[in-house]
Amino acid sequence: MTGIRMVGFDADDTLWRSEDYFDAAQKEFERIIATYVELDDVRARLYAIEKNNIALFGYGVKGMVLSMIEAAVEITSSRISATHLHRIVGLGKELLAHPVELLPHVPEAVEAIAAEHDIVLITKGDLFHQEAKVKQCGLADLFRRIEIVSEKDPSTYTRLLEEFGLPAEQFVMIGNSLRSDIAPVLELGGWGVHVPYHLTWAHEAEATVAVDAPRLRVVGRADELPVAVQAIATEALESGAGTL
Amino acid sequence: MTGIRMVGFDADDTLWRSEDYFDAAQKEFERIIATYVELDDVRARLYAIEKNNIALFGYGVKGMVLSMIEAAVEITSSRISATHLHRIVGLGKELLAHPVELLPHVPEAVEAIAAEHDIVLITKGDLFHQEAKVKQCGLADLFRRIEIVSEKDPSTYTRLLEEFGLPAEQFVMIGNSLRSDIAPVLELGGWGVHVPYHLTWAHEAEATVAVDAPRLRVVGRADELPVAVQAIATEALESGAGTL
Repeated sequence: MTGIRMVGFDADDTLWRSEDYFDAAQKEFERIIATYVELDDVRARLYAIEKNNIALFGYGVKGMVLSMIEAAVEITSSRISATHLHRIVGLGKELLAHPVELLPHVPEAVEAIAAEHDIVLITKGDLFHQEAKVKQCGLADLFRRIEIVSEKDPSTYTRLLEEFGLPAEQFVMIGNSLRSDIAPVLELGGWGVHVPYHLTWAHEAEATVAVDAPRLRVVGRADELPVAVQAIATEALESGAGTL
Repeated sequence: MTGIRMVGFDADDTLWRSEDYFDAAQKEFERIIATYVELDDVRARLYAIEKNNIALFGYGVKGMVLSMIEAAVEITSSRISATHLHRIVGLGKELLAHPVELLPHVPEAVEAIAAEHDIVLITKGDLFHQEAKVKQCGLADLFRRIEIVSEKDPSTYTRLLEEFGLPAEQFVMIGNSLRSDIAPVLELGGWGVHVPYHLTWAHEAEATVAVDAPRLRVVGRADELPVAVQAIATEALESGAGTL
């Protein structure tokens, strides 16, 4: 009878700050490189190496740091000092140890949606770091399941929906990444609520979804989420998703 | 009615070779360090740093490489070259890209046990690397579930057994690590089959279990596993585990 039976939340940059810290680490990386060589495309060169390493490293801080070390050696023609490379490892350690900072209105929004629907957390990246953040965030008990996955693509969402025993038409995904949270779920026939974040890693920006795509809502802040999910639930009910 | 309802397998150094590659990488690390400083405790110093970083990095290749870089800078008093530090990152990349090599008799043993019991794979470490190895090993379809966890301690096994809907008395864990595979399962009241591997990382060796502990079998090779599990199943049935 109900049109929507489950709501998924992304974590990094949807529930809590993340890209800000990555961005600060990359700026510090650029400052270190600038003491060796003057270039205006350091970040693009770093991203090229990161992208090339994703198939081997996956996502997360540790892979980023290893790519930074590779990039630093290449860009400086091996002139970079051990002290500076050590500092780059230190940037990663600071990032991993950073306390979780929830985004404004997130706890109320998550609680309001959890009061109406089963909710799950679906996040990608480093298992150890994501688990640590989930434990710290104080919202873990609201989620029926915590899914830490290595990639958020249609095949991952298909597997999760099978495990949840749910057709895509009864599932809404909330997140900041068009590439990872919205596009694959819409493709499968599910619903999406896009909450853009003020910073987006180049990799996550590599997707296009029309703002007027069917089954998509866009909201500016977390406190608009409960109403957006409610509107989707009503529309899904009217379109008969519950009767599939 | 049945005494044993599920059998868990560890992966690294139980199903396929792993520590050999880590060991080779550490030997190469020692050779690099030896070009800067003559010390006979390089590996112990590296392990001290790795152990210190586990709470931040978790397990796996990427964390090991980051600890190696830290150790190399510290041990050489920052004299190590960028080229050598780059080579250390390269050691990690080679390790991550290494093809999966199943241990002798593993496919037949896993198939024989899967013919009698539900089996699950429980492995710890890097999500991305472990998933890649599981995909490659050719046995994934035999397992009812693949569980990649960040730590293998009593609380992790308690959570998994709850998810499986199983009392510990009806569960057997097979693995090479006393610390991660055997001790926590015995502690919960489950059964263990220890298959020692010829190499053991210092961290995994940090546990003691009496060889005559109740509910423990020790076998020398994978082809002895089906008989050991069968013997446990019989003993569990006689001790009434199925009636709990």
